[in-house]
Amino acid sequence: MPELRKDPIHGRWVIISTERSRRPSDFAPEERRSVGGFCPLCEGNEDRTPPEIVAFRDNGTLPNTPGWSLRVVPNKFPALRIEGELDREGEGIYDKMNGIGAHEVVIETPRHEETLITLPLRDVKNVLLAYRERIIDLRRDPRLRYVLVFKNHGVAAGASLEHSHSQIIALPIVPKRVSEEIEGAKTYYNYKDRCVFCDIIRQELQQRTRVIIENESFLSIAPFASRFPFETWILPKTHHPSFEHMDPSHYERAAQILAETLRRIYQVLTDPPYNYVIHTSSFPEVDMNYYHWHFEIMPKLTKVAGFEWGTGFYINPTPPEEAAEYMREAK
Amino acid sequence: MPELRKDPIHGRWVIISTERSRRPSDFAPEERRSVGGFCPLCEGNEDRTPPEIVAFRDNGTLPNTPGWSLRVVPNKFPALRIEGELDREGEGIYDKMNGIGAHEVVIETPRHEETLITLPLRDVKNVLLAYRERIIDLRRDPRLRYVLVFKNHGVAAGASLEHSHSQIIALPIVPKRVSEEIEGAKTYYNYKDRCVFCDIIRQELQQRTRVIIENESFLSIAPFASRFPFETWILPKTHHPSFEHMDPSHYERAAQILAETLRRIYQVLTDPPYNYVIHTSSFPEVDMNYYHWHFEIMPKLTKVAGFEWGTGFYINPTPPEEAAEYMREAK
Repeated sequence: MPELRKDPIHGRWVIISTERSRRPSDFAPEERRSVGGFCPLCEGNEDRTPPEIVAFRDNGTLPNTPGWSLRVVPNKFPALRIEGELDREGEGIYDKMNGIGAHEVVIETPRHEETLITLPLRDVKNVLLAYRERIIDLRRDPRLRYVLVFKNHGVAAGASLEHSHSQIIALPIVPKRVSEEIEGAKTYYNYKDRCVFCDIIRQELQQRTRVIIENESFLSIAPFASRFPFETWILPKTHHPSFEHMDPSHYERAAQILAETLRRIYQVLTDPPYNYVIHTSSFPEVDMNYYHWHFEIMPKLTKVAGFEWGTGFYINPTPPEEAAEYMREAK
Repeated sequence: MPELRKDPIHGRWVIISTERSRRPSDFAPEERRSVGGFCPLCEGNEDRTPPEIVAFRDNGTLPNTPGWSLRVVPNKFPALRIEGELDREGEGIYDKMNGIGAHEVVIETPRHEETLITLPLRDVKNVLLAYRERIIDLRRDPRLRYVLVFKNHGVAAGASLEHSHSQIIALPIVPKRVSEEIEGAKTYYNYKDRCVFCDIIRQELQQRTRVIIENESFLSIAPFASRFPFETWILPKTHHPSFEHMDPSHYERAAQILAETLRRIYQVLTDPPYNYVIHTSSFPEVDMNYYHWHFEIMPKLTKVAGFEWGTGFYINPTPPEEAAEYMREAK
C-alpha cells in the first residue's frame, strides 16, 4: 500500500509509492530507457490495460474491445489506491496516512501517431469532456479532497509511454501548491473584492504584450512572473471557478484554444517536451467567487537545479513578453 | 539588467534573467550540449573568469594567476547584478524590482578531474570555509536578505561546467521555500518550545532506520518525507541556527560527513547527477532558537512531471528506510 507522509517542517506531503518501488539499479540513465516497442494504449491491445472506466465508443461495440475514440482506464501502476479506509496515524513527531486515492489514464486516441495537435477538434473536445466526467465522478467520493488532471508529453517531461494520454490523480488532501493558490486568490479578493485572475485578464487584454491568442471565451498568455521559458496559461475570460462546471458550450472553445496553443508551442520550439495541468477549485468549496480555473502549460526547456530546489525561486532566461511575441507570430 | 517579478497569486518571485536571454533556437536538445572541451575553471586559465574575490593560494603567488587551491569568482553570466540601487516598482497589479544581488562561483579545486569525493579532507574543509567567508561578507550588504549556497553536479542536475564548483546567490528577498521552512519551524517552536530539527534528530537517532552515517557532530539521514529517491540531509547534532556561525572546530567534521555521504551516493547510484543546498538562517534574524542549519542533497534520478508541478506534491518510488539501508551498507 502506498503511504502519504507529511514533512514536519514544511507541512509538505509526499507519496511513498510502494507499487513503483525502485532500487538503485532501476535508475538507469535516460538513454537506456526506451519509449518505443509494444504499446498497451493502442487500439487492439485493450486487454493490456485494466478494464475501462469510461469510453467514447462506436454504437454496438463492447467495453474493452476495439471501436473507441477515447478510453479512461485505471493506471496499471497507481501512485495511490482507491480501495480501503483512510487511516491517519502518527509515528513519533511524524504524520502519515495510507495512500487512498485514484490514478487514472485518459487514452486520448486509439492511434499511436496522433496527438492533441493533430486530432480533429471534436476529439480534443471529447478529451476535455472526459476530464469533466471523471472529475465530477471522483468528487462524489467523500474521502477525496482534490482532483488533478495533468499531461506529460515527451520523455524529458516524465512521459513513460509515447501514445498520447493524460492522467488524473485524486487525492485525500488539497495539495500545497493548490491551497496556496486558493489562499492567495482569497487574500486578494478580501482586499480588493475582485478575482485576481479576472484582474490579470483585464490588464493583459489592455497591455497585449503577453497575450498569445484568444477566442470568444478564452485567452492564452505568457504570465508576468513565468517560472519557465514559454510557460503559458489558458484562462476563461469570464469568471469560472471550476473547469467541470462550465456551460457545455465552452468546452469546444476550450479545446480550440488548447490545441492551437499547443500547435504554436510545437512550431516555435520544435515539438518540445511539456507538462500541462488543470487547476480547478478544490473540494468542497465550489462556486467560489475568488478562484478561476485555468490551464498551466510548462515546456521543459531548462533544468531545475540547486538554486530552484533550495529557494522555490525560478530563474527564467526568456522574458515572457518575448516568448509571447514568438508564439503570436507562429503560424 | 535582470528583473525580479512577483506572481500576484502565489507571491512567488522569479528572476527574469536578461544576461542569459535565450531565444527558441537556443534550447537545443540536451544531447547536443557538450560539457567537454576548454575549461575556464582550470588552473592556468585564470584570465577567463572575472577577477577573484577570495582565493586560498600558495605564499607569494599573485591574484588571478596559478598557485591556488580554491578560488571564488563572480559568475560570468550572473542571474543577478551587484551594482545599483534596489528599485521597487508596480506595473498595474504586478510588482517587480530590479535584479540586485550577487552570483558567485566557488572553484573547489584547480584540477579538472578532482571532485569533493576525491579531494583530501583539508580541501573539502576549505570549500566550507570559503562558503562561510562569503556568506559573512555578503550579509554585510544591507540590500540583501538571504544567501543560498548550492551545487549542481552533472548535466542532468543543471551543471553547465564539468569542473567541480559550487555557486552562491545572494538575494534581496527571503525566498519562499526558505521562509516557509523558517515559519514552519517557528510554529513548531511556539507550540512545543523545542526546535523541530532537534526533535527530528532525537527520533532518528532512536529509530535508526533512516540514519545513514554520523560522526561526533553531525548525522546524515534519509528524511521521513523524502521528496526524491535517496534524498539525504546532513544536520549538526546540536542546535546551530546558522552554518556561518559555527565554532571553527566543526567545519572539519562537516567536511568529513559531507564527503563521506557523497561518496556513498556515488557508490550506490554510480555517480548520479545531484544538487545540494545549504539552508542557513535568514537575515537579519541570527541566533534563532527554532532554526537549525542543514545540507539537503537531492540525487536527480526521477523526472519532476506534471503531477509535481501541478500540486507541489512529490511521488517518491524509494522508501527512505530502504534508501538509508543501501547507503549504510555502501563501503
